[in-house]
Amino acid sequence: MTGAVDEAVLLARAFLLRVAEPPAPAVSHLAELLGPVEAAERIRGGADLGPHVGAEVDARRHDDRSAADLAAARALGGRLLVPEDPAWPTAAMADFAGQPGHADWVAPLGLWVRGPASVADLATPGRRSVAVVGSRAASGYGKWVARDWSASFVDAGLVVVSGAALGIDGEAHRGALAAKGTTVAVLACGIDRAYPASHGRLLEGIGSSGLVVSEYPVGAVPARHRFLVRNRLIAALANGTLLVESGHRSGAARTALAAQELGRPVLVVPGPVTSAQSVGNHELLRKGYATVVGNAAHVLQDLAPVGDLLTPPPEREHRSPPRPTDGLSGPAVRVHGALRGHAPKTLPDLVRESGILPRAVAGALDELLAAGLVVPDGERGWSRSV
Amino acid sequence: MTGAVDEAVLLARAFLLRVAEPPAPAVSHLAELLGPVEAAERIRGGADLGPHVGAEVDARRHDDRSAADLAAARALGGRLLVPEDPAWPTAAMADFAGQPGHADWVAPLGLWVRGPASVADLATPGRRSVAVVGSRAASGYGKWVARDWSASFVDAGLVVVSGAALGIDGEAHRGALAAKGTTVAVLACGIDRAYPASHGRLLEGIGSSGLVVSEYPVGAVPARHRFLVRNRLIAALANGTLLVESGHRSGAARTALAAQELGRPVLVVPGPVTSAQSVGNHELLRKGYATVVGNAAHVLQDLAPVGDLLTPPPEREHRSPPRPTDGLSGPAVRVHGALRGHAPKTLPDLVRESGILPRAVAGALDELLAAGLVVPDGERGWSRSV
Repeated sequence: MTGAVDEAVLLARAFLLRVAEPPAPAVSHLAELLGPVEAAERIRGGADLGPHVGAEVDARRHDDRSAADLAAARALGGRLLVPEDPAWPTAAMADFAGQPGHADWVAPLGLWVRGPASVADLATPGRRSVAVVGSRAASGYGKWVARDWSASFVDAGLVVVSGAALGIDGEAHRGALAAKGTTVAVLACGIDRAYPASHGRLLEGIGSSGLVVSEYPVGAVPARHRFLVRNRLIAALANGTLLVESGHRSGAARTALAAQELGRPVLVVPGPVTSAQSVGNHELLRKGYATVVGNAAHVLQDLAPVGDLLTPPPEREHRSPPRPTDGLSGPAVRVHGALRGHAPKTLPDLVRESGILPRAVAGALDELLAAGLVVPDGERGWSRSV
Repeated sequence: MTGAVDEAVLLARAFLLRVAEPPAPAVSHLAELLGPVEAAERIRGGADLGPHVGAEVDARRHDDRSAADLAAARALGGRLLVPEDPAWPTAAMADFAGQPGHADWVAPLGLWVRGPASVADLATPGRRSVAVVGSRAASGYGKWVARDWSASFVDAGLVVVSGAALGIDGEAHRGALAAKGTTVAVLACGIDRAYPASHGRLLEGIGSSGLVVSEYPVGAVPARHRFLVRNRLIAALANGTLLVESGHRSGAARTALAAQELGRPVLVVPGPVTSAQSVGNHELLRKGYATVVGNAAHVLQDLAPVGDLLTPPPEREHRSPPRPTDGLSGPAVRVHGALRGHAPKTLPDLVRESGILPRAVAGALDELLAAGLVVPDGERGWSRSV
């Protein structure tokens, strides 16, 4: 399946993934600028590539295990998916571009994968995938919602993406598998590991019909910061993120926040105010950038209702021509897209057409106004200024 | 307590309340223009006052029971509260002014009241009162929230306003009474009636420590349309309305909508997505103009956090000088108020300072932009244009 990609590119990206702990913005930019093969050669050769690249690679630059890592993945029936591969999830990763306020916010240098499913079209227009996430310490209510709704999502043709953790994540994968659907597990460790241990059988099931995905090479152990880094990939691989249950200051809300930073809808399941497991969900709703969903149909409604307004995938050349929206936030780019055409659009139009939330649309309009890209037009409408 | 008001005014307003089924916008405007005594005289005398007034009074203009109605209320220990009385809830009724799109949207011509509590300062700045409403067919969960939170509200010094119905309303009053607080019941029938019959003792309790309020004279029976008309008064008497539980297309959501039309916060208690009694609440949240609240403290936070930004009470003269905000919606007036001062304000500033919700603030900014009253100012800010 990766026959189209030169082995030198695979070795180079395997090297870069191992040598620089993700996310590695400086190495990513270097690989974009020079191509992965030359970037890997220069790093391996000990060239002085400046303090940023140096900080990312100095600890491990002499530890080239790329051939072994590729072999280990292949021995498991896995492979390394790279941006040069037609099966790379280009659309899913597009929103990482142009996040200037978030230096760490970069697409992965490659993804170790195991399983038959394709992630190529995830997060492309048309409600292809939904991330279903939540606390490890889930209630019976939350587990029921995760499992039942995930089954409805696959019935509607969606791929269910989650993190294979205990609690909500596990139920989301189980609901998708039970409905004979495709589910993708994004891990914070190597694709060979059963973590948590009690999910060994579940991960086998995902690997045989869906896909197990990780930025980390075979053998890599889960570490606290890797869960946080991993969460951005769960959000990126989905058209929107559904937070089923989260307690006060729960880590689960971070995946939802990642989705929000990518300009993707954040959907939140309400729960009883008497349940500690829903406190985080209600806090997120109160912050104003998440939408409450009362059933699985609401989720389908809210995932990119107008598909063709998603940000187009970036140019595959190393340097793309400047666009007026370069440097804008994801929501601003999305709202600018929704303003295509001649008729002015109102705030509710823009909410509907951009598939993002009223507050985010309002913030995006502020940003576009400040950038001189939109003007008020007519009674309650907005238009592009150019 | 009404000694300050001339008996002729009381008789005139008692007549107007009986002769014109509320809400009676034409009669209300006539009473404002001519004063209640002259308005009542002309109607009683059969003068041709045009088709609008005619339509409101023709059925009952010869049926003057004003003296009997006043006597009946007094016999119950009640009285007629009128706008000429210093105890009239002026601030509560102020938001009825300037609702041009809503012809029926007028303050009552007077209020029949029974009980020791004062409504004079309800809905004035500073979180004086909260409306707690919801379905008759409430779940144990909803009843618990209504009762428990209402007790917290009175502990925080608030008056709890509701409609004395079965289910959520009853529990709200009971929670307030149990915590030795003040609670106000707004009825869709005369203040003498126990409706529902099983709430006879509860209404006695409210009448002895709080206040029973109605637009309808003693003896008036509850009718379907009167519940809808009554709901606007529940919303008006409170700084914000809390919807505890409501099913799909529940009537309880109407009070929340009334609050929204008055520019007051609409707060919604989430519930399990598996509960039919919370479906209406989640629908309302999805419409984008209500805020989720996870505990009683959230409610206190959301009720006019910056008190002095409430719309000032209208001039008491018959014709007040025109203001730039005349004709604008309640939220637009509120946001215009929040833009007081010299520093530009961002959307989050305005949400915080106006005490209304992001989407409503965004809509209000559209309206103010169209009216030429605000301008974008600086990176993400807004200022008054005059």
